[in-house]
Amino acid sequence: MNVATTKKVHNYSAGPCILPQEVFQQAAQAILDFEGSGLSILEMSHRSKPFEAVMAKAQGLVKELLGAPEHYQVVFLGGGASLGFHMVPLNYMKVGGKSAYVNTGEWATRAIKESKLVGDTQVLASSEDKNFSYIPKGFQVPADVDYFHFTSNNTIFGTQYKQFPKSAAPLICDMSSDIFSRPVNVSDFALIYGGAQKNMGPAGATVYLFDPERLGHTGRKLSPMLDLKNHGSKESMYNTPPVYAVYVSMLTLEWIKKMGGVQAMERRNAEKAALLYNAIDRLPLFNGTAAVEDRSVMNATFVLNDAALEPAFDALWKEAGISGIRGHRSVGGYRASMYNALPIESVQVLVDVMEHFAQKNA
Amino acid sequence: MNVATTKKVHNYSAGPCILPQEVFQQAAQAILDFEGSGLSILEMSHRSKPFEAVMAKAQGLVKELLGAPEHYQVVFLGGGASLGFHMVPLNYMKVGGKSAYVNTGEWATRAIKESKLVGDTQVLASSEDKNFSYIPKGFQVPADVDYFHFTSNNTIFGTQYKQFPKSAAPLICDMSSDIFSRPVNVSDFALIYGGAQKNMGPAGATVYLFDPERLGHTGRKLSPMLDLKNHGSKESMYNTPPVYAVYVSMLTLEWIKKMGGVQAMERRNAEKAALLYNAIDRLPLFNGTAAVEDRSVMNATFVLNDAALEPAFDALWKEAGISGIRGHRSVGGYRASMYNALPIESVQVLVDVMEHFAQKNA
Repeated sequence: MNVATTKKVHNYSAGPCILPQEVFQQAAQAILDFEGSGLSILEMSHRSKPFEAVMAKAQGLVKELLGAPEHYQVVFLGGGASLGFHMVPLNYMKVGGKSAYVNTGEWATRAIKESKLVGDTQVLASSEDKNFSYIPKGFQVPADVDYFHFTSNNTIFGTQYKQFPKSAAPLICDMSSDIFSRPVNVSDFALIYGGAQKNMGPAGATVYLFDPERLGHTGRKLSPMLDLKNHGSKESMYNTPPVYAVYVSMLTLEWIKKMGGVQAMERRNAEKAALLYNAIDRLPLFNGTAAVEDRSVMNATFVLNDAALEPAFDALWKEAGISGIRGHRSVGGYRASMYNALPIESVQVLVDVMEHFAQKNA
Repeated sequence: MNVATTKKVHNYSAGPCILPQEVFQQAAQAILDFEGSGLSILEMSHRSKPFEAVMAKAQGLVKELLGAPEHYQVVFLGGGASLGFHMVPLNYMKVGGKSAYVNTGEWATRAIKESKLVGDTQVLASSEDKNFSYIPKGFQVPADVDYFHFTSNNTIFGTQYKQFPKSAAPLICDMSSDIFSRPVNVSDFALIYGGAQKNMGPAGATVYLFDPERLGHTGRKLSPMLDLKNHGSKESMYNTPPVYAVYVSMLTLEWIKKMGGVQAMERRNAEKAALLYNAIDRLPLFNGTAAVEDRSVMNATFVLNDAALEPAFDALWKEAGISGIRGHRSVGGYRASMYNALPIESVQVLVDVMEHFAQKNA
């Protein structure tokens, strides 16, 4: 078996995205022989003691890394954050009650759509007027809503909440694209959830971290599969969990811990973002598309002032081994996703390419 | 990296379960370097051309192996068949309509429970009176129900439909534990679905094979995440699919094709089942727990006539490298799961152990 990767790729994919190289080594070994058991992790029962230990460790690391209160619960479900959009109003909006959202882009829009299918949904603020290029501020969360939902980081538009909104109503956040990138005061939140496929692991698992005491008060009869309280009380084993995605998430969470936790991730990510945004601001050929104060540390969106130069720029970064920086079709231009596992060396390569290109086209 | 497994295990796990050894080799290689791309499959965008090709190939193989009509669609979702239990009534039961089920065990019971949450649900027959040890026969499916649902194979109780029920109403089957084990006339079914983690792949994906023309007639407004028609029209990419579980499923489906398709699987499985059931019937120490005519080819359930001998028998099969044959707590005794990838040599080892044990205790 060929164990070495054949070439160096600087992987800026927006998600599924880069994970630590050492995680790939362990993840491949477990496919062939899980911890000397003679079995592949793919063929082991989710009820086996070794996998129960994996699940417990992954759950524990989520709470430890984020400093969650002891009584909070962690479950890993399939279906992606998109299924979470549906589960949030089902689990938190009272029958005849209401919810509040802020619309900051594609995923917030989908979450709002799901809430509207369930009941009265107020959109307190939106940045749609400027193609979601900023984070709305100054809105008030009404005290009488059953919960307030926001999206902490917007991958497509490259914006991110620097300070989380205050809310008397239970606070719920889709943190899919910046969870574990910085410290969070978990006790402020009734629920934090997110697809694994950015900072936590591969596609196929979604993490839900919640206060179980806030659940079960809607008066709504739920399918057990959509009932967070049920999944929590069954320790994420009500049905067969996405075993391998949970395992690789556990490995990635171990790596975060070893690297110094979310505080260290925050420092690394700030360094990487500063390096790239400095280049965007310094080089007149490039323009950032997000409001400066709301720029995402995870996803930097930018355009070439002269779109006719794109093919030449594209040829240059491809030659440098960079992958995945074409922008989403709704923004155009470029998006450099700098998740936890992206090394600063990869950012330096992109900045070097940008500088070289700027000199050539000065 | 240690690429060899350290010992030979005869893996009888009920699911997640044994997959072909060559699939593990390819599956591990793709973690390190997917097809020479320099990227792990775990860090690749689901919108990348290579993964779009994987998805298309997996979808195509499902249809090809089962001989599905051209217009049928295939989607791979997260959440397990348990989420399917919820989606079936939502997608097929008209508002104010009704459904019909047969109850053959744990999973059928869960499916029925989900249908009852949605609307009028008739249980046409049940084998609960004899601890689900047989498949009910002779029931009639009413012509006025919106669909009829059954579970083709019952892992826990070791029973299996040898002939599928006839129904004028749309026929829906949870084939989680025997899909791809034998030929099926797909056009008889409105929907066939199943968790991947038996004959198709690892835990984390659920396959849905359906006639799109039978969808969208309920008058019910659905969450797009629970709407099979939506997932079909988006070619299983409405949201991020469980990338790796789909990939390993594709590899396993390729293996089935290479081995001669579901016809060859049926022959192999019949041979294995005959070998084991012959031993159960020949050796007076052992008793099968399922009705002989309904015995599952996938999961053979049996007990020792003298339960006091269990510790001695357990020691013997463990010494032989056998794993995963303890029965489910609701049946007790033993369950030998003989999915597609289990080699007949593993069945021979179990039979040898049983014969040796019978001689010692004659």
